[in-house]
Amino acid sequence: MKLIIIGGVAGGASAAARARRLSEAAEIILIERGPDVSFANCGLPYHIGNVIPQRDKLLVTTPARLRERFRLDVRTQSAVVAIDRQKKLVRIHDLARDVIVEESYDKLILATGAAPVRPTIPGADLPHVYTLRNLADTDQIKQQADRGAKRAVIVGSGFIGLELAENFAHRGIATTILDLNKQVLSPFDVEMTTPLRTAVKNKGIEVLLGQTAEAILPHAEGMTVQLTSGETRLAQLVVFGVGVRPENALAVQSGLEVGPRGGIRVNEFLQTSDPDIYAVGDVIETMDFITGDRTQVPLAGPANRQGRIAADNVFGRHSRYRGTQATAILGFFDHTAAMTGLSEKVLKKMGKAYRKVYVHPANHAGYYPGAEGMTLKVIFDPDSGKILGAQCVGGAGMDKRIDVLAVAIQAGMTVFHLEEMELCYAPQFGSAKDPVNMAGFVAGGLLRGDHPQTDWEAFNTTAEKSYLLDVRTALEFDDGHIPNAVNIPVDELRNRLGEVPQDRPIVAYCQVGQRGYLATRILLQAGFKVTNLGGGYKTYLLHKG
Amino acid sequence: MKLIIIGGVAGGASAAARARRLSEAAEIILIERGPDVSFANCGLPYHIGNVIPQRDKLLVTTPARLRERFRLDVRTQSAVVAIDRQKKLVRIHDLARDVIVEESYDKLILATGAAPVRPTIPGADLPHVYTLRNLADTDQIKQQADRGAKRAVIVGSGFIGLELAENFAHRGIATTILDLNKQVLSPFDVEMTTPLRTAVKNKGIEVLLGQTAEAILPHAEGMTVQLTSGETRLAQLVVFGVGVRPENALAVQSGLEVGPRGGIRVNEFLQTSDPDIYAVGDVIETMDFITGDRTQVPLAGPANRQGRIAADNVFGRHSRYRGTQATAILGFFDHTAAMTGLSEKVLKKMGKAYRKVYVHPANHAGYYPGAEGMTLKVIFDPDSGKILGAQCVGGAGMDKRIDVLAVAIQAGMTVFHLEEMELCYAPQFGSAKDPVNMAGFVAGGLLRGDHPQTDWEAFNTTAEKSYLLDVRTALEFDDGHIPNAVNIPVDELRNRLGEVPQDRPIVAYCQVGQRGYLATRILLQAGFKVTNLGGGYKTYLLHKG
Repeated sequence: MKLIIIGGVAGGASAAARARRLSEAAEIILIERGPDVSFANCGLPYHIGNVIPQRDKLLVTTPARLRERFRLDVRTQSAVVAIDRQKKLVRIHDLARDVIVEESYDKLILATGAAPVRPTIPGADLPHVYTLRNLADTDQIKQQADRGAKRAVIVGSGFIGLELAENFAHRGIATTILDLNKQVLSPFDVEMTTPLRTAVKNKGIEVLLGQTAEAILPHAEGMTVQLTSGETRLAQLVVFGVGVRPENALAVQSGLEVGPRGGIRVNEFLQTSDPDIYAVGDVIETMDFITGDRTQVPLAGPANRQGRIAADNVFGRHSRYRGTQATAILGFFDHTAAMTGLSEKVLKKMGKAYRKVYVHPANHAGYYPGAEGMTLKVIFDPDSGKILGAQCVGGAGMDKRIDVLAVAIQAGMTVFHLEEMELCYAPQFGSAKDPVNMAGFVAGGLLRGDHPQTDWEAFNTTAEKSYLLDVRTALEFDDGHIPNAVNIPVDELRNRLGEVPQDRPIVAYCQVGQRGYLATRILLQAGFKVTNLGGGYKTYLLHKG
Repeated sequence: MKLIIIGGVAGGASAAARARRLSEAAEIILIERGPDVSFANCGLPYHIGNVIPQRDKLLVTTPARLRERFRLDVRTQSAVVAIDRQKKLVRIHDLARDVIVEESYDKLILATGAAPVRPTIPGADLPHVYTLRNLADTDQIKQQADRGAKRAVIVGSGFIGLELAENFAHRGIATTILDLNKQVLSPFDVEMTTPLRTAVKNKGIEVLLGQTAEAILPHAEGMTVQLTSGETRLAQLVVFGVGVRPENALAVQSGLEVGPRGGIRVNEFLQTSDPDIYAVGDVIETMDFITGDRTQVPLAGPANRQGRIAADNVFGRHSRYRGTQATAILGFFDHTAAMTGLSEKVLKKMGKAYRKVYVHPANHAGYYPGAEGMTLKVIFDPDSGKILGAQCVGGAGMDKRIDVLAVAIQAGMTVFHLEEMELCYAPQFGSAKDPVNMAGFVAGGLLRGDHPQTDWEAFNTTAEKSYLLDVRTALEFDDGHIPNAVNIPVDELRNRLGEVPQDRPIVAYCQVGQRGYLATRILLQAGFKVTNLGGGYKTYLLHKG
């Protein structure tokens, strides 16, 4: 068996190591265009910010180590320029020696990754306008920071944009973030990004939504970035973080099937339209685990797993990739946003029915010092209760809740299973009723009809007809409430039922939904037509932004 | 419906609140022997240590709040002295007024909890010998600390014993912990407690295993505790943390069925042998979720869920309790130990077949500052790969991994599912291959036969016959190795196969198992009879203690 792997970072390096473990006899050539293999992509922004000061920490392994340990024929600074599928050979441009060599293959694995998109605006090719993909990019951005860059513009407020913004802040660089979307971190539902947007602003970082860079002009003190609004920002550093595009040129040139967004099409064995060629990582179109639809998800975890699976199949094992559920997490200073599965916005776009709940508990027992608040949103099928997606924003413990929900999605669990989860509890770590249990109680109660719920968006469009009942204390009410709400504290409600109109639907709410739930139960049993406002006043505030 | 609930802490308070939500019309009486309802049991040690300085933080709710919000007839300082099942009434001793009153019931929920065991040794009733169950106990222990207690003896190194030891250390009290078992934290497998035992000692706390208090004698400076060894320890504070016993007296007196260890027997609806009487929390015998066997697990999470479920059933819903999987966690300073499901020792006792794997990864990407080591053990069915239990020791992130594995157990997942889990990854939170994935890879490889493994215990009993091959570097080898091992670094192995005997089984090992795995693959494919030592040298060290 002669196996050639094109691309030596996450998916490619995983495939190569796995291939060697499966076969000592195989000839395995790992071809990488850059100078490094298997570097820590996800660490790059933190090297710029000196959070990871040592550059070599980012090298997960080296070509020498791969050669020694896995007896791989590692060829860095080598670009595959063509694949001849008939003759089953690849043409390799050895960039160091500037010669073209040919290598035959029995099986080929494409792991060419995805390249950051660089918009074609005027000035996009100026010297200090960057994208961030590899160590060379990192070095350049870091050097510009080291040279004393004072102001930066980041175009795009996705994961990389926000991580960079944090690290520019560590370096004392005043940063403006632009995003054409009306929110930061657009994989998340908009209301869930409200705390993050506030956190970004609180760090002194300017966020301009609905705007992008229209042009970049040279300036005596660096560059002038011209915004959609007509305003300008001075910067010595501009970084585009507006998404990635699969590096599919080789696949396209050699006639492999490619999806509409450019990802190489593969079957569940990660085999392309040519059965001798596999593809893994950011360059492929994969399957959404929940919907079964084709999707493209550039994430390190899936890339690594795909590498293993492709190698398995090369060596005759029938190993299947189950699809990607897009579990992702962002750290921004002490703030965290994490998600798994489908977002509400994607479900809306698909026209698929769903329900959702919000809970706002602390990450661990409130009586133990250091508890931090969070908002956890769980989205589920309105009939079966099957969990479709979850998002969580807050401080500590977000990764845990989303990991738990990611496993629940993997297992096909429903919200009723969340009620029954038996999770770690000591006061430093959680609560006897964990936030995940709480979300299960609310969602389960909703589906059982115990806890009819009105979502803010629905209320907002039908506000005229409903009587809005704030069941918090007078103090809380005075501190801020939804317009037109009437205040009857839940503890007084049983004695003041006469004040509640019988001829109108009632929407009750409290701070987070718990007292609203009790109020709903009291009123339901007294014959009123009542629902609880999903997630209470806190969720309302998130929606208001 | 007239519902009486006996016991107002976790299970009882949950049942009462749930009952009211289900029925505004019901008469609900909540009877509690002590002065407090629904206090935070799990926080008690931390109040003693002044980690939670405000006592009222431990009051999750108050009788007044329960009356107001849930319209419950809350009767504290009231002890039920008898249940007349024929007449369906209870006799209540109102301790404040010292009168006996009778109340009839339609349904009864017993939530009387479990009492700490106080051994009947001489001196066990001396003034400053305590158990820790409630706020009154907490106040007394704290007062004795406030009075300047300098030395303490804790009998029992379970969760409460170790939590108390930490908090005594916060107070500057020199502590000796005794445990009749040959390990601390006996729900865990012994090798998994090695790091914790070291941590306890490093905090200057004396740990004496295989020993208990035989007698406690008054002494001019406090008490003298006489140990099994014949030695003595001076103390101004002695606390027994040697387990709990169900408070089943009412149940036994009224002829309800009780299990051999004293737990009230209930069916899946939490109904006792009397269909009008339910029981929840630490007082019941429940079902082990994995084995289906009867068990007793005094934990707050299950107690709360059981309270809900019993109330559901009282009001005609068919709500089932799925059993308990005994997810538990201990924090000790910066150390954490967590577990879920069956331990190896329990499986051995049951005579049930199993396999196990150990991994020793960091809690997040090693290239990001602050990564902490851990040991994760996963135990599974040798045929199906179904996960039976998991234990984890280390610093940060233990709760997350055990929660993920708890859900996997709940879902009936196998180790192959662990390989496929898609968990949060950014370098502050995890790794592209999370520790849980790693455990899945090792276990999956083991079951597929790619990665034959010898457990230390098995090796240890058949050591004569095997050739022990240390594949770490010469430096690592010189720094410490297993006796009789021969060192051939994995990177040299392919060129030194001639040195490896062909007529003996070979057991390869490295530091954590990963290079040992590669060595095993190299040797297997070269025709050797080889296995990898499970979890490598680090696991060996844990076993050596």
